[in-house]
Amino acid sequence: MPELFQVVTVAQALGRLLPHLQPLGRAERVPLLAALGRVSAAELRAPVDLPAFPRSTMDGFAVRAADTYGAGEALPAYLQLCGEVPMGRAAGLAVQPNQAARVHTGGMLPPGADAVVMVENTQLLDAGTLEVLRPVAVGENVIPIGEDVRAGELLFARGHRLRPQDLGGLAGLGIDEVAVAAQPRLAILATGDEVVPPSARPQPGQVRDINSYTVAALAAQAGAQPLLAGIAPDDAAQLHAVAQQALADADALVISAGSSVSTRDMTVQVIAALGQPGVLVHGVSIHPGKPTILALVGAKPVFGLPGNPVSTMIAFDLFVAPALLRLLGDESAGRGASVQARLARNVASRPGREDFVPVRLAARDGALWADPVFGKSNLIYTMAHADGLLRVPLDLAGLYAGEQVSVRVF
Amino acid sequence: MPELFQVVTVAQALGRLLPHLQPLGRAERVPLLAALGRVSAAELRAPVDLPAFPRSTMDGFAVRAADTYGAGEALPAYLQLCGEVPMGRAAGLAVQPNQAARVHTGGMLPPGADAVVMVENTQLLDAGTLEVLRPVAVGENVIPIGEDVRAGELLFARGHRLRPQDLGGLAGLGIDEVAVAAQPRLAILATGDEVVPPSARPQPGQVRDINSYTVAALAAQAGAQPLLAGIAPDDAAQLHAVAQQALADADALVISAGSSVSTRDMTVQVIAALGQPGVLVHGVSIHPGKPTILALVGAKPVFGLPGNPVSTMIAFDLFVAPALLRLLGDESAGRGASVQARLARNVASRPGREDFVPVRLAARDGALWADPVFGKSNLIYTMAHADGLLRVPLDLAGLYAGEQVSVRVF
Repeated sequence: MPELFQVVTVAQALGRLLPHLQPLGRAERVPLLAALGRVSAAELRAPVDLPAFPRSTMDGFAVRAADTYGAGEALPAYLQLCGEVPMGRAAGLAVQPNQAARVHTGGMLPPGADAVVMVENTQLLDAGTLEVLRPVAVGENVIPIGEDVRAGELLFARGHRLRPQDLGGLAGLGIDEVAVAAQPRLAILATGDEVVPPSARPQPGQVRDINSYTVAALAAQAGAQPLLAGIAPDDAAQLHAVAQQALADADALVISAGSSVSTRDMTVQVIAALGQPGVLVHGVSIHPGKPTILALVGAKPVFGLPGNPVSTMIAFDLFVAPALLRLLGDESAGRGASVQARLARNVASRPGREDFVPVRLAARDGALWADPVFGKSNLIYTMAHADGLLRVPLDLAGLYAGEQVSVRVF
Repeated sequence: MPELFQVVTVAQALGRLLPHLQPLGRAERVPLLAALGRVSAAELRAPVDLPAFPRSTMDGFAVRAADTYGAGEALPAYLQLCGEVPMGRAAGLAVQPNQAARVHTGGMLPPGADAVVMVENTQLLDAGTLEVLRPVAVGENVIPIGEDVRAGELLFARGHRLRPQDLGGLAGLGIDEVAVAAQPRLAILATGDEVVPPSARPQPGQVRDINSYTVAALAAQAGAQPLLAGIAPDDAAQLHAVAQQALADADALVISAGSSVSTRDMTVQVIAALGQPGVLVHGVSIHPGKPTILALVGAKPVFGLPGNPVSTMIAFDLFVAPALLRLLGDESAGRGASVQARLARNVASRPGREDFVPVRLAARDGALWADPVFGKSNLIYTMAHADGLLRVPLDLAGLYAGEQVSVRVF
């Protein structure tokens, strides 16, 4: 029986398969570091404020800002030193009018104070008296409670693939275990009377199985769990039995379809017989990889990949990987690449240093825009809310809004 | 004591550290699929030819090419059918002059035959007589012994990070266990009187450890094994003792240096006291991340990273990750991104299909060139020898040599 291809484009092929696929919805709880690269199974919200107390961002003195108004080199403000805030403990003192308390970067702002004067802008007259040489505004050099993230705030939506900065952000909130989506199980079945396992010594006419290993590794990279289902002979009944069992034990199935026309015909018939709705695509307008088969058995995708190694990789990338991400519920995409985007706002820099600016990426008006995240660099969620990093080269004084920039996506 | 930065550029900083770092040289043998993403510890050579016998690339008939010379629709060559080559077994027959044997794609070319006529170019007159309607050249539609790879040929140099196609290629040669470089052990030490573990309930003035988890995840991504060495207080003697022990048990050490000037000063002094040659860099012309410390204790790199989360990630990326790759002996670079390159040769395509062309990337004459790998798509080493994939869009008839193209690096 001749092959009857109804060749479709890649987009058409994906359009026939992907809308039928749903996230599996199975979750498992894993320790924080084991969640790297896994996909959140539910939305994650902040259980507490971060920071939980107002913190100084500078080494200096906690003051009431009003006491510094008008202060300058010529006419300093004179404050009475009322003590030092120890690191890692409650302030243990309060700042009264015309008082100042020594604080370190990251230390707690004591009650009564509402700003911090940098040590560089002060001078100690004696052990008890501080000269303030510049005024500070209320909130200056202070991270208020919840500036990084507020209790109850959405941290990560369901379907977010967790990155290093995300784990740091969760650690900061005391979340040391995460519910992640279970890995889709991808059964991988090689076919062919001539195919033997890599550990076997091939007899004349036999070849070792290559594609099962390439596909298993590609599946692992995509976040799935590969299950090697062995090698089936070129016999429709046996192939059917093995494929049916492999699919029953898995969430998806790849069959290396063999390369001769007769085995390809057999493969498509076996796949069609696995269940409804059956074969969705047989033949895609790509080269190599044209005889790719996409099918659906109940809610489970089944793929017939061309037998040769190059086609296998290309077809996996185009069809199997996106299907696995759908089963995983992974809503992230495009990680690891550099993308071209238009800068949404001016970014100032200083010649002589390289500036690194976290950005969010957003598609607007038919273009990809890079919105700088101007969060303070001492806030972990500055990174957790960013999609990538923009580098301003050493010799530039900044970049202008509208410029085309390259963003490394993370 | 005030900080005395000798600020250097990123390139200068790397130049002071990286040349001192050597691959650790520890290897371990792992099963094939566990070698994904690991780095080869020694060069890998082919133990056998692949394929080990001449294979047909088409469904058709094995013939002596000379018997088909001059054949055409008007004047076919008439050959006597001498049998069929079964898949997965030795041919079991020989093709004599004026004979033809039925073969399937991937099947063994029988002795005597030197080419395959595609089934489309033949017609069976009766059960024993074949009309050949087109001539074939010697070797046509045949993969000769060793065309994919020759016994003894270099497969992968030492320091190659193994990809899915590489595992497939090794499987095809019967290599089911690989010697890979042991993962560098990166000890990670948080500092600060105010820092508590994520599982603790912070008291007023205390914050949970964030950076250890971000750094551990970044280290795992880079191929290292993170070792959480806990949290040291702001006390030089205690920090020294903990850092010394952590470094003794590891190949490299990251200290989260704290953010106040006094704790940063203490960190650089503690690092300097760990051993010779000591601090190489204190201060880099980047923002954020300026107070980064790079040091060397014997052969082990030690990093003092700024205390805030954004600086930590940026400094890790710029300095710690390249150092870990050096310890790992990883000679691969730039995987996962898309790069712009100039096409080295014309690539023909057919409008109406997307062509995918494996390419090698090479820097020549100050430009990055994409050299198409014109290997057959039924050879796994076509992919294993490629650095990336070039896509020719649906509507193009090809790309010209010299054109700027985008290559997805794998």
